[in-house]
This record gives sequence, structure tokens and C-alpha cells, in this order.
Amino acid sequence: MTAAAPAPRTPRRRGRPSRTQTETGPATRDRILEAAREEFSERGYEKTSVRGIAKTAGVDSALVHHYFGTKEQVFEAAIEVAFAPALDAPAALEEGPLDGVGERLTRFILGIWENPATRTPLLAIVRSAVNNETAAAVFRRLVAAQLLRRIAGALDVPDGELRAELAAAQLVGIAMLRYVIKVEPLASADPEQIVRRVAPVVQAHLTGH
Amino acid sequence: MTAAAPAPRTPRRRGRPSRTQTETGPATRDRILEAAREEFSERGYEKTSVRGIAKTAGVDSALVHHYFGTKEQVFEAAIEVAFAPALDAPAALEEGPLDGVGERLTRFILGIWENPATRTPLLAIVRSAVNNETAAAVFRRLVAAQLLRRIAGALDVPDGELRAELAAAQLVGIAMLRYVIKVEPLASADPEQIVRRVAPVVQAHLTGH
Repeated sequence: MTAAAPAPRTPRRRGRPSRTQTETGPATRDRILEAAREEFSERGYEKTSVRGIAKTAGVDSALVHHYFGTKEQVFEAAIEVAFAPALDAPAALEEGPLDGVGERLTRFILGIWENPATRTPLLAIVRSAVNNETAAAVFRRLVAAQLLRRIAGALDVPDGELRAELAAAQLVGIAMLRYVIKVEPLASADPEQIVRRVAPVVQAHLTGH
Repeated sequence: MTAAAPAPRTPRRRGRPSRTQTETGPATRDRILEAAREEFSERGYEKTSVRGIAKTAGVDSALVHHYFGTKEQVFEAAIEVAFAPALDAPAALEEGPLDGVGERLTRFILGIWENPATRTPLLAIVRSAVNNETAAAVFRRLVAAQLLRRIAGALDVPDGELRAELAAAQLVGIAMLRYVIKVEPLASADPEQIVRRVAPVVQAHLTGH
């Protein structure tokens, strides 16, 4: 692939100084990924372009394609970073007795949403996934394969995937009403009160009969 | 307000024939509302304009303003129509014993989402509300005031509003994962299986201790 070839010597009309054009390696990759998260957050999936990401990162579009491939693949990489905290959920489930799994998962997911640093990229992903089928497909693949199936695996019960999804639905709905739509009194409720009300439900979905 | 004044005699550059310009009354209002639902569904809140709605309805923009006011007010009117089926939920709750309220509400809401005729406008509203703060505020006002508070009223229990919202969160999350993101196996699960799993949870939120 020629994407990483030296930058053209012709004067450029856009982007940052061309010294950045010849940078490669992890630093550049991370800067592109950060730029992608910014662009997807601000514009959503549809309005974001690889050129826009490249410009924000101060690199040539070819370098974005070189590291990540298509816009869909850049989005998937950005989602994986934004989702990294949530992907530790299955580990959190295994850190204690099965009868406490509902509370641990509820606290874990609420913790991610309560922290603005992890909430913001999640919100951007949810917005994109709700509005664009390609983004939804990426979200679906990642959440289903990497999160829900691993939770189901950690549970090791019959129809664990459906159980994981019904539990996730309770937590997704709370995220929607509390953090996205901001319906009161839920939006201002004490997280501990939410945990008290929701943990038993999540537990029932995951391990109840 | 002069909005409903006779259409200008000068040639128009857009919209349908000017005979429609002088129409008023319920027929025109309904056509504008239908056009608004089409436009908001196809473009979402941000990309929809009063001019675009007027053009689709074949009327002058002034007539849209005359009947509905601002774009936000047109959106609220469109939401109210799309939400009309859901607004019968409180009535459904009162049609039986309190210990069956979870199943009745679950069946009622799932029924609305399972029916494409009622699902499509709901999806359009959810997409707009997730992506635009003005649309979210309208959604919030309507859902909180007209749906959740009425459910809480039907329950007549302490912190009924929070209970109604936690129950709604379970159903909203299922709508998100099953109908919007389409995560499997939930997206293809038998509705009766979902009712069996979810009704007890909704019941616990609404009336449990």
C-alpha cells in the first residue's frame, strides 16, 4: 500500500504544516485516532469525513487510510477506544460471588456514565449509532461480540446472551433517560438510589429464573 | 398575525400550485402536520426547516407559522401525534389489577414498537431527541408530563415518578437494542419471551419494595 509514501512536494491548501506529513508511528496513529474521536463526537458519523479527520490531525488523508482503512474502520477504532472502559465489565463480573453480579455490573456501568471523561465519547457513539445504519452495525458488532457475549460467557448460564441483553437494556434505558434525554427526577437522582433500585433487576435478568 | 393572509400574487419559485396557498382549515392543518412528520422522519430535527415542511405540504411557510408557530412548536405537534398511541398507556394500566400492571404496560409498549405504523414515527422522534437538545427538551416535556407523570398518577405510590422512569428505562432500553441497534438475539426474540422476562421487572419497578 502506498498510503504512507512521503508527502507530495506540491504546496498544500489545507491541514497543518507539512512537516507532520512525513510523521509515522504510534504518535501519529494516536493523533489520528484522537482527531477521529473529536470529529465523530462533534459531527456524528454521517457528517464526518476522512479528510476532516486528517485535517484535524494535521496529516494527509492517505495516512488515515494507511493506519485505519475506510471511514467505517476509523469509526470502529474510535468506538473501541471509547468503549475500552466498558469492555472491562466482564472482568468486573468475575471479581466476586454470582449473587452480587447485578450490583457490580450496575455500579460499573453507572460509573462510566457518571464520569464525563468516559461519558462524552460514549454519547457520541450512541448518537451516531442511533442515526446511521453503518454506525449501528459497527456498534452492534462491537457491543454484541466484545461486551454482551463476554458477559454471557462470564455468567455461563443457558440463553446467557439474551439475559445479558435484557440486563443491558435496563442500563441503556437509564443512560438514555438520565444522561441523554435528562428526564427528571431520574436525571438528578442519587446514583446510590439508582443502584438500589436497578441492581436487583439486573441480577434477576442475569441469574434469575 | 398576518400569517394567514391571502397568498402573494407574484409568481412563486417553489412549492405546489398556488391554489393551495389560500386553503385554510383542518384539511390544510392536517396536511402540514403530515408533511412535518415526513420531514422530521426523513431529515431529523436539525435538517428540517419550516420552508421544507411548507413545500412538502404545498403551502406557504406563513401558513405553517400560522397554524403551529416555530419549528420547535411544529415538532412538538408532530411528536404529540406520533406519541398519541403511547399516551394511552396510563389508561391501559387502570384496566385491571395492580399486580398485572407490569405485564399490561410491557405488552402495551411492545405492541406500539412491534407495529411498523406506530414504530416509524417513534423512531424518528427518538433519533431527533438523541441528537438535538431542542428536540430532547420537547421530548422530555411531553414524555415526562404527559406519559410518565400520568403513569405515576395511575400508580398512586410514593416516588411514583422515579418508579415510572425506571420501568420506562427498561422498556426504552429494549426498544433501543431490539428496534434501533438491532442486537441479536434480542432483535429476533419472540415478543412473548420478552414479555415473560420483562413484565416482572417492570412490575417490580412500579409496585415493588
